[in-house]
Amino acid sequence: MPASFAPSTSVWDLGLVRDNRCLSGTSNSGGESSKESSRSSTPVLAADRTERLRDKMRRRTESGDHWFSLEFFPPRTASGAVNLVSRFDRMGSGGPLFIDITWHPAGDPGSDKETSSMMIASTAVNYCGLESILHLTCCNQTKEKITGYLSKAKHLGLKNIMALRGDPVGADWEEEEGGFNYATDLVKHIRCEFDDYFDICVAGYPTGHPEADSYDEDLRHLKEKVDAGADFIITQLFFRADTFLKFVRDCRAIGITCPILPGIFPIQGYQSLRQLVKLSKLEVPEEIMRVIEPIKDNDAAIRNYGIEQTVGMCRVLLESGNVPGLHFYTLNREVATMEVLRQLGLWIEDPRRPLPWAVSAHPKRKVEDVRPIFWASRPKSYIYRTQDWDDFPNGRWGNSSSPAFGELNDYYLFYLKSKSSKDALLKMWGEELTSEQSVYKVFTSYIKAQPNCAGHKVMCLPWNDEPLAPETNLMMDELDKVNRRGVLTINSQPTINGKPSDDPIVGWGPPGGYVFQKAYLEFFTSSENVTVLLKVLKKYEPRVNYHIVNVHGQNTTNAHDMQPNAVTWGIFPGREIVQPTVVDPVSFMYWKDEAFALWIEQWAKLYEDESPSRMIIKYIHDNYFLVNLVDNDFPLDNCLWQVIDDMFELLDNPPDEQPTEQPVEQPAEESPVEDQSPK
Amino acid sequence: MPASFAPSTSVWDLGLVRDNRCLSGTSNSGGESSKESSRSSTPVLAADRTERLRDKMRRRTESGDHWFSLEFFPPRTASGAVNLVSRFDRMGSGGPLFIDITWHPAGDPGSDKETSSMMIASTAVNYCGLESILHLTCCNQTKEKITGYLSKAKHLGLKNIMALRGDPVGADWEEEEGGFNYATDLVKHIRCEFDDYFDICVAGYPTGHPEADSYDEDLRHLKEKVDAGADFIITQLFFRADTFLKFVRDCRAIGITCPILPGIFPIQGYQSLRQLVKLSKLEVPEEIMRVIEPIKDNDAAIRNYGIEQTVGMCRVLLESGNVPGLHFYTLNREVATMEVLRQLGLWIEDPRRPLPWAVSAHPKRKVEDVRPIFWASRPKSYIYRTQDWDDFPNGRWGNSSSPAFGELNDYYLFYLKSKSSKDALLKMWGEELTSEQSVYKVFTSYIKAQPNCAGHKVMCLPWNDEPLAPETNLMMDELDKVNRRGVLTINSQPTINGKPSDDPIVGWGPPGGYVFQKAYLEFFTSSENVTVLLKVLKKYEPRVNYHIVNVHGQNTTNAHDMQPNAVTWGIFPGREIVQPTVVDPVSFMYWKDEAFALWIEQWAKLYEDESPSRMIIKYIHDNYFLVNLVDNDFPLDNCLWQVIDDMFELLDNPPDEQPTEQPVEQPAEESPVEDQSPK
Repeated sequence: MPASFAPSTSVWDLGLVRDNRCLSGTSNSGGESSKESSRSSTPVLAADRTERLRDKMRRRTESGDHWFSLEFFPPRTASGAVNLVSRFDRMGSGGPLFIDITWHPAGDPGSDKETSSMMIASTAVNYCGLESILHLTCCNQTKEKITGYLSKAKHLGLKNIMALRGDPVGADWEEEEGGFNYATDLVKHIRCEFDDYFDICVAGYPTGHPEADSYDEDLRHLKEKVDAGADFIITQLFFRADTFLKFVRDCRAIGITCPILPGIFPIQGYQSLRQLVKLSKLEVPEEIMRVIEPIKDNDAAIRNYGIEQTVGMCRVLLESGNVPGLHFYTLNREVATMEVLRQLGLWIEDPRRPLPWAVSAHPKRKVEDVRPIFWASRPKSYIYRTQDWDDFPNGRWGNSSSPAFGELNDYYLFYLKSKSSKDALLKMWGEELTSEQSVYKVFTSYIKAQPNCAGHKVMCLPWNDEPLAPETNLMMDELDKVNRRGVLTINSQPTINGKPSDDPIVGWGPPGGYVFQKAYLEFFTSSENVTVLLKVLKKYEPRVNYHIVNVHGQNTTNAHDMQPNAVTWGIFPGREIVQPTVVDPVSFMYWKDEAFALWIEQWAKLYEDESPSRMIIKYIHDNYFLVNLVDNDFPLDNCLWQVIDDMFELLDNPPDEQPTEQPVEQPAEESPVEDQSPK
Repeated sequence: MPASFAPSTSVWDLGLVRDNRCLSGTSNSGGESSKESSRSSTPVLAADRTERLRDKMRRRTESGDHWFSLEFFPPRTASGAVNLVSRFDRMGSGGPLFIDITWHPAGDPGSDKETSSMMIASTAVNYCGLESILHLTCCNQTKEKITGYLSKAKHLGLKNIMALRGDPVGADWEEEEGGFNYATDLVKHIRCEFDDYFDICVAGYPTGHPEADSYDEDLRHLKEKVDAGADFIITQLFFRADTFLKFVRDCRAIGITCPILPGIFPIQGYQSLRQLVKLSKLEVPEEIMRVIEPIKDNDAAIRNYGIEQTVGMCRVLLESGNVPGLHFYTLNREVATMEVLRQLGLWIEDPRRPLPWAVSAHPKRKVEDVRPIFWASRPKSYIYRTQDWDDFPNGRWGNSSSPAFGELNDYYLFYLKSKSSKDALLKMWGEELTSEQSVYKVFTSYIKAQPNCAGHKVMCLPWNDEPLAPETNLMMDELDKVNRRGVLTINSQPTINGKPSDDPIVGWGPPGGYVFQKAYLEFFTSSENVTVLLKVLKKYEPRVNYHIVNVHGQNTTNAHDMQPNAVTWGIFPGREIVQPTVVDPVSFMYWKDEAFALWIEQWAKLYEDESPSRMIIKYIHDNYFLVNLVDNDFPLDNCLWQVIDDMFELLDNPPDEQPTEQPVEQPAEESPVEDQSPK
């Protein structure tokens, strides 16, 4: 087999390899060897997205590129879960190599509850696109139970396990014959039952495990865990860089060669420090206590000190050359850790997007590279509704054998619920609505990011959990203008004709490429408007494609062959064309149900049954149409605003009400005659 | 199932349907209904390419759009077959709705010989992309034999049969019990054994079949054939429009409702007319004989008369409103028929190309929509070498499970043989070669379409059976320049950044779209040049992708992940992106074998063993490299000519031979001093 036929593992984020490589061989050795390389269904998918955590780690280490990772614990309540998930999104945008979710046997961690470790880790992987490690403790557990957890984790798309012993229940714990007595047993069990499927992490104790007879004995246990099949080590927290660096030297000395990641704990408050120290049986060094004790009631001061102390220690660690990445114990907070990372220069302010939408980290979905545009602002809902698709054939959004979307009656954390409280929503969207116009005003306040008449900023709408995207901001004036008149926009994108792929606002994909878009506009509007709009759209055939549907499914379109229309695509060096976003007539009918349901579920239900406010939203839900428009002529200026303008024009001056053939030359009665005299 | 979910049969060449259609329904009716429409793997493939002949015919008839079709008979020799196939290409470019191939039992018509009716029809379908009808006669044949022919035809991708009785062998033919006595029996047999798979055509006799007892009895037989399952009728030739129009009226009167196509016979010569009339037992009207007899020895005059007479008759037929299309008996000639069609305005000078390459009409290949660029000038070879692929998954050029190309040792009509004679090739490529430079001159003569030193125009090269494409002509000066210096180009395309899809030179696909190309250049050149080229290419990283390989498979590339690079793509209203041409590293290694083999098979073998001419070609074959270059930066000017220029520059001024630091300000000794004095 010629070397030149072997599929390469060249990666997305490394771009084109720049050296020449001379490979020899003959070409007629048959087809099997080219199985992988001849057929690339997902050209932009990087090894970065598909390779294993341990391989990513090795690659980043070899490139000398420092990384960070973040630890979270599962929340107690469903609303805590919603908040944690949006924290994942915010902290995920900084570019962690992975996150990990702790496991607390008392909290039913393997259940299907929205707050379980299992479901939180699954959400991080599937909906937030984060590489995740699920903790698992084995103490006092049967093998069947553990195997069940691991099978479930695998089924949910989790690929990494932090194997821990956990704290024994009861004071007088004794080893169990054939049971899980040490983390080593769990590591062996995972390798025995699941072969090499999982990447396995184990815990290291820079000052020795508190229960170990000695530091050296603990090191030997660590060596056993690694020899049993662990891929890397994360350490317990520590307060001095030297502690960790000595630990790494000692590990290397006894033959532990895998990566060892320091566990970093930014001190964020006096109480949390005390509690953690108590649990971990660590001693806080005197030089730290001396600073903290005097300011123990000043949270901000302690946090600032914690940031400063952590940054200093991390700098020493990174400069040592022995630390490829830093692992942060976040305590589910974000400010301190983000600040430390920013000061260290590890926070990626503008992470390169491989595709214009967030990619799910589930291995099943790794080939997915096309999605309908409708869920652009609701990516988690899209993933949720398509979670039962068996596969994503050739990276397509649609499964050729069963493209059905999950049913609407199947709710979930972020599906039809807002992450804001009812109270906050009422403030933003109006305690009381008096007319359709008061709804229009909510839309314009959202678009202009201005306070509504009650003085509250409108930060979200049922269809948009976040403020306007920077790209949409480019069209703010036009959006404002049309929303004022009841064209209630929920999704839009401007025309883009070949911007560089590293453009800070609209770029995505690898460097050296060009990205394109067809202009898109999606809105709710009244049936009166739609009647006039359809007349106007005749003028724009075949330039503009439209789909117009009401809640009952009454559907008008000029896309007769029901083919998807690609509206975002990119051309890259040495690659096939990528077209990650489409306007798809079939999925639009599923989206329509969701889009209309959001009026009721998120907005109408804020108000009392039969209240005027609720009736107004209900009226819109029952009578308005959902419209989407695509301007196919991407090299020209976006004509969709002109389409809407023409609609307004025709509404303002309906043909049958215009005066009959008044020649414009004829001076109006009030025209000043003197103006016509020569000067 | 909501009507709006039904897959439409809207067609490519109709573009977007312009009227609004209001369809009602609800959307949650499940996934099965959207099976087809949610997943369009071949967005540009028209119904026109995939629908049945009878449906195309009906659609064209309903649109009032007249068509034509062409009849050919199988050739006697292999070189006749090569000529006929290139005639198919030329006449296919005028846009026939279909062609048909006659069946002569004495000529082994169902065999695998290159000249059999079966193989000629298969070639027309598979390699020329022509909708084809295979004639089949049943007289004196067993049912098993006929079923065998039909199975073979189906296997080869043939979809249409002209069902005929044929002429009985021997004078005293008698009906056979249970045998095939009439074409009706054959029609019934086809429908019985193959259900609705084939479209079936039968023959009609405007003046009655010569063996029929009466015109009326013959009409009744025709009705029987149609009732047995025939889809349409082609008539025997006739000389007066009235004959045909009366025949159609009579058919309609007895309830024959299917299309009836007039068989048109342009008189092309006195002998062929006499022979045809004798075989068909027709009488030539006196008014025609009166004209022809006096000029019977003047072929050109007779042909001109034939054209004039035919055009006049066809005009009457078309204007009658009863003739949707014309069927031409070409006698395997092209001039007269093409002239008639041009005068009638039926010859499509610039048929719209659905894709930038000719599409195979084989139903198995209907989803194919991507091909490697290497075979751009040798599409039939590409189809031949990929004929055993089981399918074209998602329209891809590569089969994910077995992308192997057919082996080189497997020859065929147009595979490694030239369609020109050895004599013609020697005249074009040189009776005697004296050096590599004499080879270079052949290339430049071909590119400039000028005579070589012996005064013969070079019309083809082993890699290009036709003169330069109009698109390539745009780059003629650059091509000429580099070929002079031994950069022997065999394939190239310019950069195109969004030209309208109806551009006469580079356009393809439906109207309203935009087509794009990355610049491509492929050439043979010496290893000395390649060494320098590789140095130059370092400057063009990552803008230029290259693959450089010699006949032994020594391969150098900067496309390390072995992914295909899309080099031709199009964006169309309401469609997904189409990328019909790729530079694919894997198939390049198969193409390389073919490209190098052509030096030997087509060129070297023209000369005696051990002759200097043969040794020169052999030297090039053994020592030159095949290079392909892609300029990824399609919005900028093509940089590939600059790459070659830089190579020449570095060859002319190698760094180590340059004088050591001679400051240019220092006047050379011979510089005239007086020029420096002030004037």
